[in-house]
Amino acid sequence: MSRTPIHVMVWGENIHERHNERVRAIYPRGMHRTIADAIASHLGADVNVRTATLEEPEHGLADEVLQTTDVLSWWGHAAHDRVDDAVVEKVHRRVLGGMGLLLLHSSQGSKILARLLGTSGSVRWRDVGEREVVWTVSPSHPIAEGVPNPFVIPQQEMYGEFFDIPQPDELVFISSFAGGEVFRSGCCFTRGRGRIFYFSPGHEFYPVYHQAEVQRVLANAVRWAAFGQRRQQAPFQSEKKPMGWFTEPLATAPEA
Amino acid sequence: MSRTPIHVMVWGENIHERHNERVRAIYPRGMHRTIADAIASHLGADVNVRTATLEEPEHGLADEVLQTTDVLSWWGHAAHDRVDDAVVEKVHRRVLGGMGLLLLHSSQGSKILARLLGTSGSVRWRDVGEREVVWTVSPSHPIAEGVPNPFVIPQQEMYGEFFDIPQPDELVFISSFAGGEVFRSGCCFTRGRGRIFYFSPGHEFYPVYHQAEVQRVLANAVRWAAFGQRRQQAPFQSEKKPMGWFTEPLATAPEA
Amino acid sequence: MSRTPIHVMVWGENIHERHNERVRAIYPRGMHRTIADAIASHLGADVNVRTATLEEPEHGLADEVLQTTDVLSWWGHAAHDRVDDAVVEKVHRRVLGGMGLLLLHSSQGSKILARLLGTSGSVRWRDVGEREVVWTVSPSHPIAEGVPNPFVIPQQEMYGEFFDIPQPDELVFISSFAGGEVFRSGCCFTRGRGRIFYFSPGHEFYPVYHQAEVQRVLANAVRWAAFGQRRQQAPFQSEKKPMGWFTEPLATAPEA
Amino acid sequence: MSRTPIHVMVWGENIHERHNERVRAIYPRGMHRTIADAIASHLGADVNVRTATLEEPEHGLADEVLQTTDVLSWWGHAAHDRVDDAVVEKVHRRVLGGMGLLLLHSSQGSKILARLLGTSGSVRWRDVGEREVVWTVSPSHPIAEGVPNPFVIPQQEMYGEFFDIPQPDELVFISSFAGGEVFRSGCCFTRGRGRIFYFSPGHEFYPVYHQAEVQRVLANAVRWAAFGQRRQQAPFQSEKKPMGWFTEPLATAPEA
Repeated sequence: MSRTPIHVMVWGENIHERHNERVRAIYPRGMHRTIADAIASHLGADVNVRTATLEEPEHGLADEVLQTTDVLSWWGHAAHDRVDDAVVEKVHRRVLGGMGLLLLHSSQGSKILARLLGTSGSVRWRDVGEREVVWTVSPSHPIAEGVPNPFVIPQQEMYGEFFDIPQPDELVFISSFAGGEVFRSGCCFTRGRGRIFYFSPGHEFYPVYHQAEVQRVLANAVRWAAFGQRRQQAPFQSEKKPMGWFTEPLATAPEA
Repeated sequence: MSRTPIHVMVWGENIHERHNERVRAIYPRGMHRTIADAIASHLGADVNVRTATLEEPEHGLADEVLQTTDVLSWWGHAAHDRVDDAVVEKVHRRVLGGMGLLLLHSSQGSKILARLLGTSGSVRWRDVGEREVVWTVSPSHPIAEGVPNPFVIPQQEMYGEFFDIPQPDELVFISSFAGGEVFRSGCCFTRGRGRIFYFSPGHEFYPVYHQAEVQRVLANAVRWAAFGQRRQQAPFQSEKKPMGWFTEPLATAPEA
Repeated sequence: MSRTPIHVMVWGENIHERHNERVRAIYPRGMHRTIADAIASHLGADVNVRTATLEEPEHGLADEVLQTTDVLSWWGHAAHDRVDDAVVEKVHRRVLGGMGLLLLHSSQGSKILARLLGTSGSVRWRDVGEREVVWTVSPSHPIAEGVPNPFVIPQQEMYGEFFDIPQPDELVFISSFAGGEVFRSGCCFTRGRGRIFYFSPGHEFYPVYHQAEVQRVLANAVRWAAFGQRRQQAPFQSEKKPMGWFTEPLATAPEA
Repeated sequence: MSRTPIHVMVWGENIHERHNERVRAIYPRGMHRTIADAIASHLGADVNVRTATLEEPEHGLADEVLQTTDVLSWWGHAAHDRVDDAVVEKVHRRVLGGMGLLLLHSSQGSKILARLLGTSGSVRWRDVGEREVVWTVSPSHPIAEGVPNPFVIPQQEMYGEFFDIPQPDELVFISSFAGGEVFRSGCCFTRGRGRIFYFSPGHEFYPVYHQAEVQRVLANAVRWAAFGQRRQQAPFQSEKKPMGWFTEPLATAPEA
């Protein structure tokens, strides 16, 4: 299993951090830097981590960047509408071609989630800084490895059901909130060749991404989503095949 | 869709109700009667409802009874071990042959659940009479039809994750408890020709089965589990088939 | 269960039927009329069936039409690109709001499938008029009710794996082809409040929609997809909820 | 991820190989040895492979053997009934406790499959030595890694649908046969802490386990099923928990 490092790109909207003092106090270098450092620190030489933000040209996600990214982590909230459709289209294609994708917290309302999952991603919500408890319901899933069951996030925005997503291919975490709501907080999906993990903890007003258990989940998710590291592959395309095409000796590497 | 009524058998262990005054006060005629009445009252002429209990010969589930049952509702707790293995075997066969099965509350520890699902059904638990809130996560599922999202059970025993079951074919309800635990409280499974619904609310110390929302869930589940009413069918069996057997005109009714 | 009839709209691209003599000979009034008649004949008074085609203004799917449609059946092939994005957007919203959708054959390449499922829908294919055998792998599913296992379609276009779709919520049929390929030919998905059934048989060069077994599948699928007939409902939307909102007596009907 | 080697136990019924000359010619040292050698050769220092057979005391699966096995591979056919119930019970407990399990070919009729999955495992079948083509339907699954899509097994026993198993948690392979049947030939299940992979190719009359693609699948499956290597863990058990138990600092390692 000695592979080249997983190339991770941590994308952050980076608006709250610059305009809201409360958020800046928690994430002075931006949430994306905290997330990137967490992944780098947990996975060491197994990863190569970069960051990009909304304000950069092409949001920092030019073709050559996406082509060399194995796993993209996405956090957006205030400016979903300002994400360029062309970039969404490219990210979508890269996921279908095998790039892993982590969708964090309010990214349930992002264009890329809607494009990949087909639903609204809508939730019931409230932000009063209440306690969230995260429970593992798939203890044999690699994303749950080494994660205490449960773990407590002292203060969080509440996201509650009904959460308008397709039934996840694998449901890993369910959260409860002090107010009594529940939420499918850790959800795995496969689309095309790519793996997608949605993880709901992470409101900007609380130091969620500084928390050890959350960092462990992110690191596990990077490994899981990087499966195959199919950087060079295109999305599946329809192809015409003659009768009996597969009975010839296969001279080339497997397609899938 | 004019069909003969669904033949429902409501099975109750009927021990707590006879030996514990607190339970008898809530269910003077036994939990099984309350459940049976609820189903009959919600579904009217669409059902024919009988009851049986542990103490009866063959636990009230003789061959001719099982053969004429479309949906069996099961509640056990104190005496899982006293259920005769031969009866468990027969119920198992009938489910594989198409009989619907409702597994209620502490039936997560029953022999029949272990036999059908293959896992321990173990839970984390506590009984301090805390509040349970039941949330719908499959709003388009027939078992959720007309069920408020959420509804509150004022007092319940806590059942919490990790709940050792296979990943449900369809997850309909998730509950939270006042203490912060979550539980996959409404789970659908198909095994062989049969449909199984596990529903966790229903501790004997609280009037859970008198509650309108719970009764609605049970009635919906009976309808769902009765699908097909395949009373005469046997479990699937291996069969040898010659080359090309299916190209002959099919003279008989479809097998499945 | 006495409900108003299910309002079905059968949409057909209606290009091959007008421009290709071979197709016109099989479907002189258009494939949409054959499909509509089949559904009407199988479901009788339980349905009200209309048809629409690409050439009509707004493709025959104006707001008032979609608002009064419970289940939409979609067949497209030669002109996916000519389907107006605004119509696709409206159909998408209606499905999320509860309208059922049947996606037939080459609709795997349609805009609406890509919008709802997020993947390419690409297939391996070949048209040499080979035999397709359709096998049931979910014998307890309502769409398989009364469908012989298997049934044979004497001549069909081959659609083979890998089929680029999300893992279906329920896989009902798998087909084999004379050339040795397999295909997940009957796939159920739920998105938002809506139910979607993809069914692959139906190439325009063969009388597939005249075949009794295929018609039975379509009729079953209409019933399944109509579940709830939530004609008046909107897609789910995020909503802010105060602490304890659900502990008040619910004065109104359930939301989901 | 530098771990101790995966301890693999390859169990073979070893009856046909001793009593049937045709089988002995293909597998002179027994199928179990061919399978064991294939796994050892593909995974090298990452595995430690042993074998055991029916005739040995406790079928070669004494407590100390099972306790030091990470992945058990199982092939049975002629003597399912002669497998001791006590051994089945122990294997069942070990799987729930985290041991991986490969169930090969006719093991669909074994006691351990029925015990873990709850269904009959029945199939339609025929042995005329026809061609099987194995198609990947989950190209991003680790068990499909490096496996050509499709690959051809020149001669095999036909196993066809309906295959009476629970809907797999992940469906990796579907096979077609020369006679037109299809079969879900590669199926993943998780039960308790353990991972189970059923793989249907492998009739004793043909050199299936000598084939490179099949060996690759087995090696991939060992890796997948070994996840976590939870050799010391017990099956989940119910446990009583006081209110607020998880708010104390967790002094110990995560439970799941």
